[in-house]
Amino acid sequence: MIITLLTDFGTADYFVGALKGVILSANPRATVVDITHEIPAHDVQAGAFTLLAASESFPAGTIHVGVVDPGVGSARRAILAECGGQRFVGPDNGLFSYVCERAGSAARVRHLTNRKFFRKDVSATFHGRDVFAPVAAALSAGAEPREFGEEMDDWVRLASLAPRAGDGGAIEATIIHVDRFGNCVTNLTRRELSDERIARGATLVVGDHTVRSIRRFYADGAGDSPEPFAIWGSAGFLEISAPRASAARLLRVRRGQTVLVSPES
Amino acid sequence: MIITLLTDFGTADYFVGALKGVILSANPRATVVDITHEIPAHDVQAGAFTLLAASESFPAGTIHVGVVDPGVGSARRAILAECGGQRFVGPDNGLFSYVCERAGSAARVRHLTNRKFFRKDVSATFHGRDVFAPVAAALSAGAEPREFGEEMDDWVRLASLAPRAGDGGAIEATIIHVDRFGNCVTNLTRRELSDERIARGATLVVGDHTVRSIRRFYADGAGDSPEPFAIWGSAGFLEISAPRASAARLLRVRRGQTVLVSPES
Amino acid sequence: MIITLLTDFGTADYFVGALKGVILSANPRATVVDITHEIPAHDVQAGAFTLLAASESFPAGTIHVGVVDPGVGSARRAILAECGGQRFVGPDNGLFSYVCERAGSAARVRHLTNRKFFRKDVSATFHGRDVFAPVAAALSAGAEPREFGEEMDDWVRLASLAPRAGDGGAIEATIIHVDRFGNCVTNLTRRELSDERIARGATLVVGDHTVRSIRRFYADGAGDSPEPFAIWGSAGFLEISAPRASAARLLRVRRGQTVLVSPES
Repeated sequence: MIITLLTDFGTADYFVGALKGVILSANPRATVVDITHEIPAHDVQAGAFTLLAASESFPAGTIHVGVVDPGVGSARRAILAECGGQRFVGPDNGLFSYVCERAGSAARVRHLTNRKFFRKDVSATFHGRDVFAPVAAALSAGAEPREFGEEMDDWVRLASLAPRAGDGGAIEATIIHVDRFGNCVTNLTRRELSDERIARGATLVVGDHTVRSIRRFYADGAGDSPEPFAIWGSAGFLEISAPRASAARLLRVRRGQTVLVSPES
Repeated sequence: MIITLLTDFGTADYFVGALKGVILSANPRATVVDITHEIPAHDVQAGAFTLLAASESFPAGTIHVGVVDPGVGSARRAILAECGGQRFVGPDNGLFSYVCERAGSAARVRHLTNRKFFRKDVSATFHGRDVFAPVAAALSAGAEPREFGEEMDDWVRLASLAPRAGDGGAIEATIIHVDRFGNCVTNLTRRELSDERIARGATLVVGDHTVRSIRRFYADGAGDSPEPFAIWGSAGFLEISAPRASAARLLRVRRGQTVLVSPES
Repeated sequence: MIITLLTDFGTADYFVGALKGVILSANPRATVVDITHEIPAHDVQAGAFTLLAASESFPAGTIHVGVVDPGVGSARRAILAECGGQRFVGPDNGLFSYVCERAGSAARVRHLTNRKFFRKDVSATFHGRDVFAPVAAALSAGAEPREFGEEMDDWVRLASLAPRAGDGGAIEATIIHVDRFGNCVTNLTRRELSDERIARGATLVVGDHTVRSIRRFYADGAGDSPEPFAIWGSAGFLEISAPRASAARLLRVRRGQTVLVSPES
């Protein structure tokens, strides 16, 4: 059984090791996989995006432990979400919002209340080790979701990933992620922006820059122009990239910035 | 069988891969777990602390390979320490000092001298690959500790983790670690500083700053004050933290700095 | 079956998680091992060196997935190389050049053309997930190399690792890697530079600096002199190091710089 870990712990401290030790103590046969521990500290939205993009490559039954948890120890709840055949264990702060949004009405969320699955002494500062990892290990060893707590509906949601429709075919989209190569991931999918509209000449406006070119792959047309271009990225979203350069730096783009899809003229 | 790795190798070079390759070559069924490879280069004390904090989440029988080894190739000895039901393999430079201190008189340390467990050609620069990883793999495959070498008593110890008692109930403690969030971990445990003393108003003095507030969790009282506060951290030590900020930066604290616990007045 | 990963993805994004998810979906029993994900972006030569140095610690049969792939989506080919009893899957851009060079005429390279082993929809931007990881998983599950495509001879080669012989016993060598400690790895092996020549007083000239001392281990002669020295490194190459300092910084050395071995006078 696969248990993945996604945290904002970094890899320099003992935190990640502690999670793995707890899981392997409870279930020595679990396969523990790091997704990342480099989510910016306390950045729930970045964690939610990365989990959305990574989880779709994992098989049904995978258990994901997500710990981006600025409210640890406070009244924020701990949850177990079941979405798309996978399980997600972590704080109720929106971290699983995007995977639940994608699963739609099939998503089920439970409030983790059964303390028999927690570490004997739950610290106030490290629920990853004391609550989420033990729960994930118990799940991987065969415990049923209903044993952990009741279903709930009012779990915390982030703003929807869907872009907003504007006038006359315009779309108001957003940069939802900037990756290590400086590619700027928008929230536009092929549902909102068809290849036909692109072929008819739809353009993207980011700040005071207009992106007119859509490439098929990064090196497509390389050598021609240093201009940023758009490309369908591997997570299913339209990305703004630049030839062998960081589009984010070139266009001074940050996450959260608006991207306007102009109606074709 | 679990084999953990803690090094100062970083993750950009081939060193960590080489350790894993050696271990899995000798014992394909070993479960290799990274604790961290981000110990600052040559910082034995940082490695000792991180190993202390991480190892307590691992099950009995776990084998920990620690490689923070500025003296590699010199006359410094290689050791196998047995502490608290776990095994630790690495250089004799204090790296296992804290885990041995915690195990007290139950700690046993052996000098690794039996070259039949080493790589055929032991390089002068990479004992992680040529000595420690092969020894750990052999242990995980069932070799007995006594096969590796004789017990020894004069292994290298770091200064004790215990804080010093001062006059009239004062305690002279130390910052032993600063984590990625800027939390400053002291060497104070509940043995030295009881909750009763805290309730009676004991204060912590770091540099020219006095910390009066002890919180139960990080977000406790959040929104009220930007003041640093103390909190019992997940490794069992009192930490100095700041609300959604780095206490280390705020107080200009570094590892090694003194923290005075003033007697309650 | 061991599958290693070496990429320039960094560890902050979802890319590495996606590779692991794909592999474990196809073969839950694979042992997935990270070599590194910190190859500088698009730096094929750095990837080739790290793979050369790491792979020799892995057992026969290991499958290495290498993804440093600036040409992803373009006409560059995907290959499977068989060298020294191990398998290497990735782009045909020189990434496996050094391991093939070491294997000599025994190296076999195939063009990956059988799309039945690829992801159903191959994206134009993430062949790691859509081509290389699925191929590696299929190999680990028992597929035969010949099922993936035809052998080819004109795979992309980097400049040879071998240093050039100069006049009168001089050798023109190169810095091929700088590690995290600032050690500068040359392409000199004991084949080109015998211990006898060193004993007779061969010197290394890097920029305007002459290195005369060869040490047996890093701390050898420590305390004496801050002078850089040469040492046989763990990857089998002569390295230029400095006592508890970065030789690269001290000598202002970068990868690619020439190192002259002067004839003994």
